[in-house]
Amino acid sequence: MSKPLIHHRTAEFGRMFTSVIEDMQFVYRTKGSVLMMTASGTGGMESAVVNLLSPGDLTIVCSTGAFGDRFVNIHKAFGLKPVVLSFEWGTAVEPEALRKTLKENKGVKAVFIQHTDTSTGVVNDIQTLSKIVHEESDALVVVDSVSGLAAERLETDAWGLDCVVTGSQKGLMNAPGLAFASVSERAWKAVESSKLPKFNFDFKLIRKSLADKETPWTPAISIVAGQAAALKLLRAEGMENCWKRHDELAAHARKLLKDKLGLPFYAKNPANILTGVKLPESVDGTKLLADILKEEGISIAGGQLHLKGKIFRLAHMGFITKSDIEAGVAALEKRLVGAKA
Amino acid sequence: MSKPLIHHRTAEFGRMFTSVIEDMQFVYRTKGSVLMMTASGTGGMESAVVNLLSPGDLTIVCSTGAFGDRFVNIHKAFGLKPVVLSFEWGTAVEPEALRKTLKENKGVKAVFIQHTDTSTGVVNDIQTLSKIVHEESDALVVVDSVSGLAAERLETDAWGLDCVVTGSQKGLMNAPGLAFASVSERAWKAVESSKLPKFNFDFKLIRKSLADKETPWTPAISIVAGQAAALKLLRAEGMENCWKRHDELAAHARKLLKDKLGLPFYAKNPANILTGVKLPESVDGTKLLADILKEEGISIAGGQLHLKGKIFRLAHMGFITKSDIEAGVAALEKRLVGAKA
Repeated sequence: MSKPLIHHRTAEFGRMFTSVIEDMQFVYRTKGSVLMMTASGTGGMESAVVNLLSPGDLTIVCSTGAFGDRFVNIHKAFGLKPVVLSFEWGTAVEPEALRKTLKENKGVKAVFIQHTDTSTGVVNDIQTLSKIVHEESDALVVVDSVSGLAAERLETDAWGLDCVVTGSQKGLMNAPGLAFASVSERAWKAVESSKLPKFNFDFKLIRKSLADKETPWTPAISIVAGQAAALKLLRAEGMENCWKRHDELAAHARKLLKDKLGLPFYAKNPANILTGVKLPESVDGTKLLADILKEEGISIAGGQLHLKGKIFRLAHMGFITKSDIEAGVAALEKRLVGAKA
Repeated sequence: MSKPLIHHRTAEFGRMFTSVIEDMQFVYRTKGSVLMMTASGTGGMESAVVNLLSPGDLTIVCSTGAFGDRFVNIHKAFGLKPVVLSFEWGTAVEPEALRKTLKENKGVKAVFIQHTDTSTGVVNDIQTLSKIVHEESDALVVVDSVSGLAAERLETDAWGLDCVVTGSQKGLMNAPGLAFASVSERAWKAVESSKLPKFNFDFKLIRKSLADKETPWTPAISIVAGQAAALKLLRAEGMENCWKRHDELAAHARKLLKDKLGLPFYAKNPANILTGVKLPESVDGTKLLADILKEEGISIAGGQLHLKGKIFRLAHMGFITKSDIEAGVAALEKRLVGAKA
């Protein structure tokens, strides 16, 4: 990323960009299309909604936290009224509840699900949920894997996932600034007939430029360079090893947190990407984490919205090592000893 | 940009982000709002359309090249039918033609104009055009200064500009990945009543987060860091000096191009950002520029769309020096000597 910028309308950029797209197909486990956008993960989420749907389409949004609610808000912003299947924060989507909702709502165009919701640290069983969607309907399966991809197992083609959106800054081990979307053949059919308005995120324009090894608009070139480098690491590691590494990191983090802190975990179906831990009521979580950042230079996330100050979320995804986790737990332990009792 | 990433929900990021916004107010010459988005310049252009307008709104788009046409295409994508005031590529917007169009079309909500159009290297007289809009109507003045800001003089407040969009990678001397929009008080009133759909680019959500020194979605943090550093250079230089530097760079480039190549310039009202030069018909412009890039490592842009292969565009904006220009002209001269006659 520190190298001089490559102009984005050159063969050199075309080669780098092509390697990113091909390596993303490897990470997504898809032979289908992968599109790249200069955007946050939220832009990627919006791109799925506006490219697949038309006014009046019936959809189901499964919500298990802040990011499920974000899908609902995107729908509402574009005039859609999704059926919202909500679950208590900290719990995962219940597969039979989704089946029941599909049976009750015929003609659903798409089902939106988070792979992992970083607000709670929950992982959803995408394989089972996708199977149920395909058994009960012709709906597209749209997955927000902004924080999940390359940390939790995900098989785009084998699981029948029609559109999976992600961001560059989590499991993809890059700086933030890029969003990606996989698009299945079935999803392309929906794109062809989609009537919601879009321009910046128009999948058809992006596909057209992709054929020329370009993006339609100037991309975040330095972040693309970072992504190309990070994807080489994932390619060398292989996805099975990558998922195993995250299994081990998560197990290591949870054992340490249990042994050293002994506080209750927040999520009932915890993801490999992070562990949410409930803080004792006597502890000001916001101050605790600000102190750790200031005094030790270790960044540990707090709770969002109604969980602000009440939980912490220790990340163990992407470019994070066992020793990073150990340093984080040690910093927490030092400050929580008195509060444990 | 090479420093470790600062998490975007921290006080440290808040300070950096605030400095970027304040320095952008300095560059824009505005006391009004400046909003930041993780996007290409095209995302910034879309943000102006979707935040200021409602279905059925009457607008005028002045088009002098590829980027004027882009504004038209964004309008169409969102169901609007603008009055398009087109000028031949290479010429600027004719002020009295705009006045006539305003007189013929009452109730125009906004007028869209490029400050500079990089496809042709033309600069428009934004001060005069804005004055005419305000004399003839209540329309908002929306300016695409993606390539113009911090290269050509622009006075957001003094010239009555309601929304000026720009990108990080031209006069702002940063890598691409960020878009900015200035929003006047009048423009905020339009935002309040706007009915076009938006989420990722929603100015109201961005303003709400700005009050907390945050962005609503994860920003391209490393590009924000680059922008903070580049803006310190502009702040130290001052805008008058910055514009003077670009006047001198452009004059230097044009004198050299005239003396050494003697080929006709493309634009009738050339901008300070780049000079477009017509190539002899015998020259394959695409190959010429590819050769220069490959053999000398100097990046010179070609023509876009119908100008592909027929012109070159020598940039002299932002982080470009006189010696860069001299190296570029020398590389061209070496290869065009035989073709001159």
